Amino acid sequence: MPQTKPSSVPTPQGYAFSVVSAGFRKEKGRNDLALLVSDTPASAAGVFTLNRFCAAPVQVGRNMLKNRPQARAIMINSGQANACTGTLGHDNCLQTLRLAGEALKISPADILPASTGVIGDHLKMDAWAEAVPRLADSLGQYTAEDFAKAIMTTDAFAKLSGREINLPGGVIRIVGMCKGAGMICPNMATMLCAVLTDAAVDDEDWQAMLDRVVVKTFNRVSVDGDTSTNDTIYALANGAAGVPASAGDLPLIEAGLTEVLADLAYMLVQDGEGATKVLHIEVTGAKNQAEAETVARTVGHSQLVKTAMYGADANWGRIVAAIGRSGAAYEPEAVSVHLGNVLVFEKGEPTECDYDAVLGPILKKSDVRIAINLNAGSAAYTFLASDLTHAYVDCNAAYRS
Amino acid sequence: MPQTKPSSVPTPQGYAFSVVSAGFRKEKGRNDLALLVSDTPASAAGVFTLNRFCAAPVQVGRNMLKNRPQARAIMINSGQANACTGTLGHDNCLQTLRLAGEALKISPADILPASTGVIGDHLKMDAWAEAVPRLADSLGQYTAEDFAKAIMTTDAFAKLSGREINLPGGVIRIVGMCKGAGMICPNMATMLCAVLTDAAVDDEDWQAMLDRVVVKTFNRVSVDGDTSTNDTIYALANGAAGVPASAGDLPLIEAGLTEVLADLAYMLVQDGEGATKVLHIEVTGAKNQAEAETVARTVGHSQLVKTAMYGADANWGRIVAAIGRSGAAYEPEAVSVHLGNVLVFEKGEPTECDYDAVLGPILKKSDVRIAINLNAGSAAYTFLASDLTHAYVDCNAAYRS
Repeated sequence: MPQTKPSSVPTPQGYAFSVVSAGFRKEKGRNDLALLVSDTPASAAGVFTLNRFCAAPVQVGRNMLKNRPQARAIMINSGQANACTGTLGHDNCLQTLRLAGEALKISPADILPASTGVIGDHLKMDAWAEAVPRLADSLGQYTAEDFAKAIMTTDAFAKLSGREINLPGGVIRIVGMCKGAGMICPNMATMLCAVLTDAAVDDEDWQAMLDRVVVKTFNRVSVDGDTSTNDTIYALANGAAGVPASAGDLPLIEAGLTEVLADLAYMLVQDGEGATKVLHIEVTGAKNQAEAETVARTVGHSQLVKTAMYGADANWGRIVAAIGRSGAAYEPEAVSVHLGNVLVFEKGEPTECDYDAVLGPILKKSDVRIAINLNAGSAAYTFLASDLTHAYVDCNAAYRS
Repeated sequence: MPQTKPSSVPTPQGYAFSVVSAGFRKEKGRNDLALLVSDTPASAAGVFTLNRFCAAPVQVGRNMLKNRPQARAIMINSGQANACTGTLGHDNCLQTLRLAGEALKISPADILPASTGVIGDHLKMDAWAEAVPRLADSLGQYTAEDFAKAIMTTDAFAKLSGREINLPGGVIRIVGMCKGAGMICPNMATMLCAVLTDAAVDDEDWQAMLDRVVVKTFNRVSVDGDTSTNDTIYALANGAAGVPASAGDLPLIEAGLTEVLADLAYMLVQDGEGATKVLHIEVTGAKNQAEAETVARTVGHSQLVKTAMYGADANWGRIVAAIGRSGAAYEPEAVSVHLGNVLVFEKGEPTECDYDAVLGPILKKSDVRIAINLNAGSAAYTFLASDLTHAYVDCNAAYRS
């Protein structure tokens, strides 16, 4: 499984990081405001939540990129989501950008905002006014890992991944930082993530590449089926590596970007609220990809499947029942299911398998494969989901208060 | 809230009940096979799961009613669902009907089957052969409540509801018995339920009435979002009350049937696996009923909403986020949300409300109202859902083993 050690993650050239404890969160002293600044204007791309109640920073950031796909900085707070906060929330978001622009001596229009935390609470503007100058003053004293730590909410570990890529003209780097761990079911978007490269990429190419990669990575994971109001990914490419452009660069960069975002998407699920397992749901043999996706999502969102996997219970009937209510087209008599590499259901019938003896060790692992063949066509889809545990209920029965 | 005491539930005339412990379940001695027989042939109606992996007894029962909407008896076992069991499962189901027909000296084609329990396990045919004669011998020695108890799986209490209805020609009775408590998200069908009346109703009228009532009752509840492979409701009308037919009988009977099934649907949610609360989700102001339903189901299935309600946490932002990802059409700036009778979100903005002080007592109750006005039209939909608790995870991380 992915999981690069933070110490081995390369940092692209030409970016500086800063974090402070602004007092947005209940835990005293925890860093909760993060900033990164590119030395020079960077091509900027973004993908945002499709939740109709999208947060103020989502509205603001989306408009900024629509007007001009360039940026110098990304600023993210945890503690308050600034979602469902109306006109005041929108004004507050713009004011945080003005504060940062003043402190950094750059235009507020060059700073992309994102927020995560409790929905409906207003930003603590006094705390922002106090914290932003400190944030600007300590720019360059922190790392990408510090940035990833400061944007955590209920996350258990910081999510960071990077790659060095050898282009014909030289080496460039990509690093991504993101946070989970609840309200995770990205829909054509993702949870908060910042991804940086020192490659030089044209802004239209960069946005198109990001769109393609997000669909294959973040949009294929779920912790709880709840698409957030704040999902945002920002991607900057500043060209600071100074690598001259060559034909064939873009596919190499896209391959690296895909690896980085796939790592982060896996970590989101691995660190899903209360999660003990990552379920790898592989659907094959579907009539088309939409149907493969429907089946994978239905199984991955099933409370009964998720609790059975938590209990390492070989209750494959719950998987078949979820396939059955998915609405996809197939013949029940043609469907087969594997758990790990063990065939448990073949052409609509149970196999002759001592489920508990054979499956026990497989289901106790931290990664469990659920492979479903609909035998109705040739389309496939893979989806990652976390299990549903006591710790999930602990976490969410009292998150806000 | 509904909840009629079993002792006060009227039993229609002309039906006899029996239960035995057949050894289908792990708990020794618990009754797990139930039978009811009408003295005379009854108009018989049924509604079944839309899950494509529907169980053998669903396939058998549906065919029987398609051929001839008349029956004498209903036989239900718990312990094994006889779902995903292929050809052998189908043959086993038919064999149980032959055993019962022989013991009761009636045609197997007059006995409607249903099963509930673990998916994928085969029926224990030796135990059936031993138990069915005992079941037939003790017919008449048991009550509708005993029947409701014998079909329980993870249910905490037996689900029974009835009404006496004064028709112009005299009194008739309706009683319904059903079971939950997991894999509950009926889709144009319901969990196992038997409903009986001693009114005389033509079989076409009876099926049409049942179809209408199920859509308004069982199809509006969810415990876990998982539609079962075995959902079945059977309804018999045997005319044993001897009440002469009058014009206007049918609407009165339908009103009584609606009350009985609404009671039972409420009980399903109240006794949802691990549930401590019933969430009454009322959506109004939708463009059309399908959109109202989509919003209500999205909120009612949200793990984050369900855990917050369990924790009595006034985290209304999760409700708004669920509305936002539902896909329904509305203007975010027009939406309002009440918890209980407290307006928490008005026209897209938080209200000036001391959420914890005002909402604490409301959220600690066993029934919580979540009212959502989309202000986009005049369609409405109401949906009942249970909360998501530690006990739910306890129950489902080790149900099978």
